[in-house]
Amino acid sequence: MSLVVVGTVAFDAIETPFGKTDKILGGAATFIGLAASKLNVKTKIVSVIGGDFPQEHLDLLNDNGIETSGIKIIPDGKTFFWAGRYHNDMNTRDTLVTELNVLADFDPVLPESYKDCSYLMLGNLTPQIQKRVIQQCAVRPKLIVMDTMNFWMNTAWDDLMEVISMVDVLTINDEEARQLSGEYSLARAAKKIIAMGPKFLVIKKGEHGALLFNKDNVFFAPALPLEEVFDPTGAGDTFAGGFIGYLAKTDDISFSNMKRAIIYGSAMASFTVEQFGTERLQTVDNADLNNRLRLFTDMVRFDITLG
Amino acid sequence: MSLVVVGTVAFDAIETPFGKTDKILGGAATFIGLAASKLNVKTKIVSVIGGDFPQEHLDLLNDNGIETSGIKIIPDGKTFFWAGRYHNDMNTRDTLVTELNVLADFDPVLPESYKDCSYLMLGNLTPQIQKRVIQQCAVRPKLIVMDTMNFWMNTAWDDLMEVISMVDVLTINDEEARQLSGEYSLARAAKKIIAMGPKFLVIKKGEHGALLFNKDNVFFAPALPLEEVFDPTGAGDTFAGGFIGYLAKTDDISFSNMKRAIIYGSAMASFTVEQFGTERLQTVDNADLNNRLRLFTDMVRFDITLG
Repeated sequence: MSLVVVGTVAFDAIETPFGKTDKILGGAATFIGLAASKLNVKTKIVSVIGGDFPQEHLDLLNDNGIETSGIKIIPDGKTFFWAGRYHNDMNTRDTLVTELNVLADFDPVLPESYKDCSYLMLGNLTPQIQKRVIQQCAVRPKLIVMDTMNFWMNTAWDDLMEVISMVDVLTINDEEARQLSGEYSLARAAKKIIAMGPKFLVIKKGEHGALLFNKDNVFFAPALPLEEVFDPTGAGDTFAGGFIGYLAKTDDISFSNMKRAIIYGSAMASFTVEQFGTERLQTVDNADLNNRLRLFTDMVRFDITLG
Repeated sequence: MSLVVVGTVAFDAIETPFGKTDKILGGAATFIGLAASKLNVKTKIVSVIGGDFPQEHLDLLNDNGIETSGIKIIPDGKTFFWAGRYHNDMNTRDTLVTELNVLADFDPVLPESYKDCSYLMLGNLTPQIQKRVIQQCAVRPKLIVMDTMNFWMNTAWDDLMEVISMVDVLTINDEEARQLSGEYSLARAAKKIIAMGPKFLVIKKGEHGALLFNKDNVFFAPALPLEEVFDPTGAGDTFAGGFIGYLAKTDDISFSNMKRAIIYGSAMASFTVEQFGTERLQTVDNADLNNRLRLFTDMVRFDITLG
């Protein structure tokens, strides 16, 4: 099934206790697209870049089977740039630079060939941009997954509420779920958020795994206890890409298949954190993925016979 | 199999956003013993109380099949008393009162009938006391499980290291695992702690579940996303009681049975937090427990066929 992804295609400069990078390939749509492409899903990106974006990065996406005709190039503009420094715990970071550049005036335009997509992934962007992408679909996609963050809760509440009401799956982290719902208990937060419109809610808890809720069910997905997190940048987007990629590949949006999709997303994200940026994700092959999925399966398996 | 528990039998006074209590029955050995007794394990407590401890509390323990001849009564002493106030998030609390009272001079003496126990649970106490209990066993128990806390890492490091080297399973929370090992990564922390002596390590992560490690394996156990945590007091001790209780009941200390034991411990702890103190734990019956175990099983079950 065809997958359209809207999100940033960008430069990141990253400092961790293990080293630092110059401007490297980053952006939500980049990670999402690469993760989905590892599952052989035909992925089409909608984004915007400047004239400074190297052709080799576009070639990399194309070589992975990703369609980039929906990435608008502004020749005299500069590409979105983020720089950050991770603390020793690798769970917190300081943003050093955020240059919106061409992203500031981004008005997404879906090419004709994108408009009949079955699966739509709205990467973290302004709610207005996310909405304009939904509105350009010729038919309502079978599944719309939306990522967002606390920034939009603070600055664009009404727009955010409108888009949330239009999607099927919302993915946010635990603190964002608490802020969005005003509830500390994640079980209560999930009820309130599902009442806002989405049929499914994924709460990402980083090293603590993820929770999947619908109206009646909950699934608790593990995270691998990794010995070393080298660079967490893009882990959440890789998770989203593995998640919607698996759903698009299997074309099954039942709760039980979403559970599998979360395990695929978690496994994919566990590669991203092993090297800087997209480095490790680029080289993941089917054997790597199967080995990682086996680790996840073994890690949570137990059998109890109830008396 | 017989289970001996050493730990506090005490008074707690608890304030939460939902209400407050006077001095009610508390203490690590109380929660551990009640949880194990729910699994029909013959449990014997070693502890100390003052003349102010009501006979009805001892009756309650006895009525649950718990042996209390190892609880020394100091007629003119006062029972250990803790008072605390939980914050709105229910994850953090302030200690308002800690009166050690008779606990200050506690020198545990195992009755003869305790000395051949197969399973020994060392509740959180000074490492010296934990060691003296081990030394009084006539034969080395089949399994020794030890709970401890950061306070002993700060004040009694050498004694703590000695006792840790004598036990089979150590149960601590994630922050304590990091402090004990000097490693932020829990996977690395587990390796270092297992090198200190214990064959198994349980890392309790509260609302994020628990991890079980041995030298070669890891198991990730979920926690129920509860809508309401009424009072977390005793949850960790209830977990420990369900854990060692299940191991004693089945008399199987393999890794795969420890996984089941962690699920039993988690299920049991999920009852304790529903009411003040031991109130809810007292009324748990077999049907309650099976229903809760079914929730845990359903919550983590997924099937992936690897290609």
